[in-house]
Amino acid sequence: MGERGLQIAEELAEGKKRNSKMERLRKLWKLIAEKGLDALLISPPENLRYLAGFTGSSGWLLISGQSAILVTDFRYVEQAKGESPGFEIIQVKQELHDWLPRLICDLGWRKLGFESNFVSYESHHKVSEAIKAKQINLELVPTAGIVEQLRSVKEPEELILITKAVELADAALEQAKAIIRPGVTEKEVAWEIEKDLRQKGSEGVPFEIIVASGPNSALPHARPTDKTICSGEPVVIDMGARINGYCSDLSRTLFLGGANKTFQEIYNIVLKAQATAIEGTKSKMLASQADQLARTVIQQAGYGDAFGHGLGHGVGLAVHESPRLGLSSSDSLVDGMVFTIEPGIYLAGQGGVRIEDMVVLENGKARVLTKATK
Amino acid sequence: MGERGLQIAEELAEGKKRNSKMERLRKLWKLIAEKGLDALLISPPENLRYLAGFTGSSGWLLISGQSAILVTDFRYVEQAKGESPGFEIIQVKQELHDWLPRLICDLGWRKLGFESNFVSYESHHKVSEAIKAKQINLELVPTAGIVEQLRSVKEPEELILITKAVELADAALEQAKAIIRPGVTEKEVAWEIEKDLRQKGSEGVPFEIIVASGPNSALPHARPTDKTICSGEPVVIDMGARINGYCSDLSRTLFLGGANKTFQEIYNIVLKAQATAIEGTKSKMLASQADQLARTVIQQAGYGDAFGHGLGHGVGLAVHESPRLGLSSSDSLVDGMVFTIEPGIYLAGQGGVRIEDMVVLENGKARVLTKATK
Repeated sequence: MGERGLQIAEELAEGKKRNSKMERLRKLWKLIAEKGLDALLISPPENLRYLAGFTGSSGWLLISGQSAILVTDFRYVEQAKGESPGFEIIQVKQELHDWLPRLICDLGWRKLGFESNFVSYESHHKVSEAIKAKQINLELVPTAGIVEQLRSVKEPEELILITKAVELADAALEQAKAIIRPGVTEKEVAWEIEKDLRQKGSEGVPFEIIVASGPNSALPHARPTDKTICSGEPVVIDMGARINGYCSDLSRTLFLGGANKTFQEIYNIVLKAQATAIEGTKSKMLASQADQLARTVIQQAGYGDAFGHGLGHGVGLAVHESPRLGLSSSDSLVDGMVFTIEPGIYLAGQGGVRIEDMVVLENGKARVLTKATK
Repeated sequence: MGERGLQIAEELAEGKKRNSKMERLRKLWKLIAEKGLDALLISPPENLRYLAGFTGSSGWLLISGQSAILVTDFRYVEQAKGESPGFEIIQVKQELHDWLPRLICDLGWRKLGFESNFVSYESHHKVSEAIKAKQINLELVPTAGIVEQLRSVKEPEELILITKAVELADAALEQAKAIIRPGVTEKEVAWEIEKDLRQKGSEGVPFEIIVASGPNSALPHARPTDKTICSGEPVVIDMGARINGYCSDLSRTLFLGGANKTFQEIYNIVLKAQATAIEGTKSKMLASQADQLARTVIQQAGYGDAFGHGLGHGVGLAVHESPRLGLSSSDSLVDGMVFTIEPGIYLAGQGGVRIEDMVVLENGKARVLTKATK
């Protein structure tokens, strides 16, 4: 392609990106309006990245039918101009309660939604007091999960990035298998995995890599230690990659030189529970029903109490996002959702087994994205 | 030392650690009681690590004159038992509003403080509703910065760990200077720095390393890009290490092959501003006064608007903690505080200069911990 052709391709790609952002804003505005709100105040970094392409660690969006405003401070204002074309960028020096009431007053909004699970009690209190003091006719309305609901259903471009992140994790697991042997420590293996992920293009790692062997593998969120890995004991490896902001999440349990009878049995139960959940999880199901599919297998095998966490979680710009697959979840599953299926059994003092794949719901069924062998 | 001697040394060290935790709880309880509270509910991971030694990512502490309770879920309960001896460990399955009212009811507390800048509006609302529904005679009292105030003054053992983290960063900067040359990219340099830090014992890195060259250096919180570093342009490197949870933070601005006249001038202004602040910062001063020391130098040189952030921040278990050194800060400086002094000048489109050292206040004055050359 000539230089001119390249430029046109880049402009088209840039235009496509902007159109996708516009489409997201349109969908968001529909949800905001349905709740009878004039606008929504948005703060989590992943939501800012999703809606505005802004990757700074601190900023606010104000989205109404007429306006798309990105508020940030000195540190990020130049970055915001580059990353978020089409947004009105406002630079502020002070805290939320200093600038928000003034800005809202000028915009004439009466009902402003805020993300009640992200705004602290203190911020809300200070903003409320400032609104009262300035006698602004504005109601602050708590909302939850509006942007997260949009984010939970992936667009094709997002799925491409997630798939790339899944492939990186798959490859890193193969690499780990090649170097792991009795005598190395958990920390050494974790660091080799991280180097492999990052040298192949992962933007950092989305969470601290878990390499937990023997009794440590009974801690679902163990940190790698200086413990030496011995043959015969379970080794839980849990890690992921990040590509253009999009994450992957992968767990496998290995046994160097074969497992003892108890852990062979446990491994097979977890494997069966996972296969049952992957097979049985369908669109339009409740997330809690998907959880129950795996849980029933583990309960019937007599290990119900040893599976103390939920079946899985959505993965996207955040490594833990909607939907949440657990017994107490009220989420519903729909096509386009990407999430983990990761049952586990943990025996305190002995060890644990967890097997985790990522799936996407397509045509009503779960398609497994993870290719790593089990 | 014989085996028995080693064991005694370990037991003494373990006992010392426990005593230091007891001492922290005693100081905390004094602050809680002064506010007329029966107990305090605590949630930030750094506060849990500081008070209980607990390093899980999710848990709550309840501290009163009689009780030290650590509440966590299935994933961390085994870890909590190991890390937090002496604490009553309670395992919960559900959310705060499900378990807190029941627990408080049994304990008979009437006034419970909570950290209003960490508890979300939603959590507070749900807990309040649950308390009302159960007709529990309990007042939830918003507090801010109680544990952070304790954490801001470092004990000798904490200073030893911070100093180790500072030394690692100093060494990594020397390493970076050895490999940086025109033609390498920002990302390549950042990754070499990170590998060096971690292979020498840093527990991850406390924040994403900044390597920002040319115009990118005008973004105070730039991310490393694939941009090639050229001779003559400013390169801001900002990074830190972590040892046993304790962080360091170091920035330097390099010029490969010498700076042009503008940046020579700017560099010297920033250097003078920093030296002035280090020299003039004293215990019992307001943090805002320390900020003003550096700001005056930069303002008088005509670059006041180009120094858009505060002078510095406390560093400890969190890389950004109390005290906050800025014009709007109401913090006071006292002996034992550890913080950064990091003035900067940023010219959009051209580049920026930031020079950052860590200091500890001792005998009324700032002692510089950082040894990296300027």
